[in-house]
Amino acid sequence: MSYISFRIKLSAFSALCAISAAGYAQTDVYEQWRESWMKTYEETMPELKVEIKKPVAAVKGVKDDAAFQGWRMEKAMSIEEFYNAPFNGNSGIVIDFGEHMTGEFTFNLRQGWKTPDAPIKLKFTFGEVPSEVCTPFDPFPGGSLARAWLQDETVTVSTVGEPVTIPRRVAFRYVKIELIGHSYDFHFADMQCAATTSASGEPARLPESASEIVRDINRVSLNTLKECMQTVYEDGPKRDRRLWIGDLYLEALANMYSFKNHELTKHCLYMMAALAAPDGMLYSTAFERPKAHPQYETQIADYSLLYNVALLDYTLASKDIETARDLWPVVQNQIKYAQRYVGDDFIYDRQRDRGLWIFFDWTPGLNTDIAIQGAMIFSLKKSAELAKLVGDNDSAAQWIELAAKMREAARQKYYDEKEGVFFAGPEKQLSHISQIWMILSDVVTPKEGAKALKKVLADKNAVYPGTPYANHYLVEAMIKCGMNKEAKKFLVDYWGGMVKKGADTFWEVYDPNDDFRSPYNFFPINSYCHAWSCTPVYFINKYPEIFQK
Amino acid sequence: MSYISFRIKLSAFSALCAISAAGYAQTDVYEQWRESWMKTYEETMPELKVEIKKPVAAVKGVKDDAAFQGWRMEKAMSIEEFYNAPFNGNSGIVIDFGEHMTGEFTFNLRQGWKTPDAPIKLKFTFGEVPSEVCTPFDPFPGGSLARAWLQDETVTVSTVGEPVTIPRRVAFRYVKIELIGHSYDFHFADMQCAATTSASGEPARLPESASEIVRDINRVSLNTLKECMQTVYEDGPKRDRRLWIGDLYLEALANMYSFKNHELTKHCLYMMAALAAPDGMLYSTAFERPKAHPQYETQIADYSLLYNVALLDYTLASKDIETARDLWPVVQNQIKYAQRYVGDDFIYDRQRDRGLWIFFDWTPGLNTDIAIQGAMIFSLKKSAELAKLVGDNDSAAQWIELAAKMREAARQKYYDEKEGVFFAGPEKQLSHISQIWMILSDVVTPKEGAKALKKVLADKNAVYPGTPYANHYLVEAMIKCGMNKEAKKFLVDYWGGMVKKGADTFWEVYDPNDDFRSPYNFFPINSYCHAWSCTPVYFINKYPEIFQK
Repeated sequence: MSYISFRIKLSAFSALCAISAAGYAQTDVYEQWRESWMKTYEETMPELKVEIKKPVAAVKGVKDDAAFQGWRMEKAMSIEEFYNAPFNGNSGIVIDFGEHMTGEFTFNLRQGWKTPDAPIKLKFTFGEVPSEVCTPFDPFPGGSLARAWLQDETVTVSTVGEPVTIPRRVAFRYVKIELIGHSYDFHFADMQCAATTSASGEPARLPESASEIVRDINRVSLNTLKECMQTVYEDGPKRDRRLWIGDLYLEALANMYSFKNHELTKHCLYMMAALAAPDGMLYSTAFERPKAHPQYETQIADYSLLYNVALLDYTLASKDIETARDLWPVVQNQIKYAQRYVGDDFIYDRQRDRGLWIFFDWTPGLNTDIAIQGAMIFSLKKSAELAKLVGDNDSAAQWIELAAKMREAARQKYYDEKEGVFFAGPEKQLSHISQIWMILSDVVTPKEGAKALKKVLADKNAVYPGTPYANHYLVEAMIKCGMNKEAKKFLVDYWGGMVKKGADTFWEVYDPNDDFRSPYNFFPINSYCHAWSCTPVYFINKYPEIFQK
Repeated sequence: MSYISFRIKLSAFSALCAISAAGYAQTDVYEQWRESWMKTYEETMPELKVEIKKPVAAVKGVKDDAAFQGWRMEKAMSIEEFYNAPFNGNSGIVIDFGEHMTGEFTFNLRQGWKTPDAPIKLKFTFGEVPSEVCTPFDPFPGGSLARAWLQDETVTVSTVGEPVTIPRRVAFRYVKIELIGHSYDFHFADMQCAATTSASGEPARLPESASEIVRDINRVSLNTLKECMQTVYEDGPKRDRRLWIGDLYLEALANMYSFKNHELTKHCLYMMAALAAPDGMLYSTAFERPKAHPQYETQIADYSLLYNVALLDYTLASKDIETARDLWPVVQNQIKYAQRYVGDDFIYDRQRDRGLWIFFDWTPGLNTDIAIQGAMIFSLKKSAELAKLVGDNDSAAQWIELAAKMREAARQKYYDEKEGVFFAGPEKQLSHISQIWMILSDVVTPKEGAKALKKVLADKNAVYPGTPYANHYLVEAMIKCGMNKEAKKFLVDYWGGMVKKGADTFWEVYDPNDDFRSPYNFFPINSYCHAWSCTPVYFINKYPEIFQK
């Protein structure tokens, strides 16, 4: 079989079927596929749309205990007034661009009364939310996260009258400007952001029947998704600016029900495929620059399994069966890899191979034994569906059989029929996450699921979701159990809570009871435009009968 | 007379002679000349030579009372060792490029053990001398000068492995690097400076007969000039990065006896001419960006007069008589303007028109009445010499006559024949500057001049020069009076003093008794590569019998 023939996707698929019994990772053939996937990744690089955005007002932060994180913005002057006044007296002012944007910030100065005869030093602090430009960054309490994520940039302007672009992409609505060094009066003459996104197309408008809060949630959700859609699905345009499989899965769902930019999903699927480890297991996150590369330290069991689901959803939405065929080895590898952890009792045991990172949520102390069992069953079933689509009926049959055995094992080991809930570990931990994944994987019937969910939701001692990411799966599980009213109420309360607190885009972290919650010990370093919070647009548009009425 | 004909230089000259009696400033004709001069300024824009320079060692500042400004550099490790070690432990290290350079600084990082997953924030502090990278800049005590001149730049590196160029031209030998924010180990992979100069050509080598210190002074002088030769003669590549007529005059002299890059002199003469005030008086300083423009607040009487001298010297050195013809209105305007200040007693009186800035030196309390009288006579005589070269014999005759009358008036008003010195003002101020300009303008004979100079040099109460700029004229005056030994001793003591203190380039301010002297109340903001200190190369090469033996 020649090298050339492998680059033809259909041939690659046939070849795969022929050699899959012998194992297709760590072979020359597999390396050639990875090269081919990298080529497709490069060929599908999206073009960014650039829109020049101008500021709308000069504002100042006002301490207000009733406002989100204690700060609200009050108008200080119009932009015309700001440009007309010498800047020297306005050091510390905040410029409001009126909406969240992601891109390059450019400004220009013009001289005042005297000929400028020295450089000017200015400090710009970009913030997605008011508190970011009102809270001192130093001494930096943010522990393990890099201080460098904070978007403060000090710039030396050598020539008044020559536009200066800050050499860093920024994500912001507000920018505070402070004067560090000067020797004469000067004015700001212009400010703009060359805002980028790869989102295009007009998402469907909600009908009149949708409530105002649902419309608002839909709008903020769309903005969040748009801002995260760059040359990949980023997890956050401020932080961490990279592709994660978990976010890819959720963003692709939201995209399916809004911009329908399936090419970006395809691009991201190919990126992760091309960068997989030599043994075929996907890395969970990847960087685009200086050239595409994974984070070699990061493999997450549940993300690996979700890749297959994302590929199925992409295939169904785009009708692009060729991509599924081309990436078929990746699907097989993820199942194969996960199978190593499944014991003779058909229980997923993370200790079987080596301690693997299982994520699901940031909640401290969360026992994920049940969730990973559920996620594997979920992935097996979705992968089998995809197997049928690409014509690999042997795999489909095997995986359906395995899923059934794992379902049975899960019920036996984890389900407390009397209580109607799943308990994890010797400590019998009751968590939302465990119930959610037993529901999504059909380990319980909708009726059983509804009972479990209601019980866990009512139990104040239950381990509850800590992220919008986990809350996405909670809403999905509610809908699957027919808890439509509860799903709508939860969506309106949770995401609507952010809207009511002034969110332009949905936040990485949201605890309705604690505005300052941060996994990083410093709330200004939280991302306030985060992919995994963008899924209301998916729910609202996929289930109009639930959310649009 | 058509517009076109005015753009032909020789025609312009004829036209000038025809209308000069009627006044040629503030006329359409004059505006057309200025346009034509601007065109020549643009056409003569020099190409910068770019040389990639690499660092030579990693060093650290060591407190040493015996060292210049209390700091010396000690080798910390080789550059290879620096690149091989993770940077994280080396924050605060200083990189030594081994020589003074002016240009763009670029660096690259490479990853350590872990995949970089966050930006890195670094602070670079560029210094021409060791103390600049060892002295905290804040709180900034530098009063009226802009803090922004200090060359500290904080940079966010978004992608490890992509070279970063600091978006500001820097002038330095040393660069201190501090780590502000990171979350993983990394290395520096490369550092370089794309150093620029418009100096070219090989200056003559000094013969074996020249002493070591004179060779060293010559070398440092050449480096200073080379660094200041950019697209104009800058006064200092670190500060203030612009053309001043006074520096232009001295740099052009040094250039005549070294690089012989007369095109740069021409370019600068045209720049100042094109930017003169509507009344024809030159501004004293100009900026190149965003487009050529003068500092509208700054006209200096002595600088205006020196322009004519610089043009004569240029004409004699380059044999380019056409430029002198083309710029002839400028020469006439400067004399004409100065004449407004000359009273019926043929004494220059700065109060006649309006209080004008007369510079000569930064010495506090200096009375410049005598010096400006001398500078005007000096300029009249040089301008008359140029008038003869361009064939304007009427002007030549008038100016020679005026110079003679002003000479006589100066002797009568200011010369104390008994004491053999010139006293200025009612307070009878005795200063070096007064004697120097009476000598350079031939108001006294060399014999009288030598007597005056020796007297003032011996008088501890005399007002002595405060800058290398003033010291240049002192050496010139000494030579004019035949005080060759004294001139050589002074040059070796003064400029050689900087060399012995480790100067790579000559400094803006040098007081042998006070390393920390600064007109700006903060010595790190002094320029340590300053045009007006570069003239030893002129003296050493113009007067080989004095300095090379």
